[in-house]
Amino acid sequence: MTKIPEKRDFPVSQVRRYLEPGSIVLVSSKWRDKTNIMTLGWHTVLEFSPSLVGLMISGGNHSFRMIRESGECVINLPTTALTDTVVGIGNTSGADIDKFAEFGLTAEEASQVDAPLIGECHANFECRLHDDALVQRYNFFIFEVVKAHVAPSPEHPETLHYTGDGVFMVAGEIIDRRSLFRPEMLG
Amino acid sequence: MTKIPEKRDFPVSQVRRYLEPGSIVLVSSKWRDKTNIMTLGWHTVLEFSPSLVGLMISGGNHSFRMIRESGECVINLPTTALTDTVVGIGNTSGADIDKFAEFGLTAEEASQVDAPLIGECHANFECRLHDDALVQRYNFFIFEVVKAHVAPSPEHPETLHYTGDGVFMVAGEIIDRRSLFRPEMLG
Repeated sequence: MTKIPEKRDFPVSQVRRYLEPGSIVLVSSKWRDKTNIMTLGWHTVLEFSPSLVGLMISGGNHSFRMIRESGECVINLPTTALTDTVVGIGNTSGADIDKFAEFGLTAEEASQVDAPLIGECHANFECRLHDDALVQRYNFFIFEVVKAHVAPSPEHPETLHYTGDGVFMVAGEIIDRRSLFRPEMLG
Repeated sequence: MTKIPEKRDFPVSQVRRYLEPGSIVLVSSKWRDKTNIMTLGWHTVLEFSPSLVGLMISGGNHSFRMIRESGECVINLPTTALTDTVVGIGNTSGADIDKFAEFGLTAEEASQVDAPLIGECHANFECRLHDDALVQRYNFFIFEVVKAHVAPSPEHPETLHYTGDGVFMVAGEIIDRRSLFRPEMLG
């Protein structure tokens, strides 16, 4: 069993710290009393404040309609401790199974949305639909992160970056170049 | 000097292999006989075929107008060999300097667009503007990758994933889980 890290509130305007590196994320949703989880690698930060992120959610996913109808989701950041869980979630459909039960994950209550947090993940970002202008054309949802929960330790967890074809890259090692940045570029 | 890797044509429908992991990229552009380069971490894959990618290009960048007016750019994938170059490009403006000259980079001719390829990068993706529906509201450009050039070696180069605040994560180590995927999820 993966342990559940203790998390703290984190400023929503700073979630790029965890999302800009581009790891695969687990997106949890709830609609009509059912929950679901999908893996997602096609996402980007769009704005600091309001805290906006864009997610491309393929229409073939069981989660698509749940997120479309509820207008909510939670973006959860898994670490390498959850590698096989991430693969399992990506290989199954919420039409067939209860993914929280099947993969032994803990659904924790969110504070701003009905969709559950995944306790075992390093960070959880509660999201509300901000703009659906590109949903019909590209399945591209723009969400506002309305609440963020992050485990303070480890400071730089190992994350999974999907290349397709069953292969992940692992990011974890750090290069610090603060000293080379102009002050106004930091913070 | 960073050496210039030899590249081969690569299928545009498979660029997710290099972009989905979410590394920082260098975006080169050309407009009215001037070239420029910017660093960019806010991007996502949107579709396999046509090969669509979304880039959030902040209006404060000198590149913004060049890309907006020309409707073209090249997405270049730097490796850790170019770390200090990436930082330097992000810390300077094309309004003040010629970035190719300043950073000793080689502008190579593209085949489908006027914007130059950066020779020293591991991969180059020539892009043409596909949809500007969200440019005014979010500075979000949807491009079609019309031609891709990739160095066949190394197979998994070390890439830079920006967290903000002058700190990068490095991805390079590989986890192969092909054996756990359903066949239709691979390819």
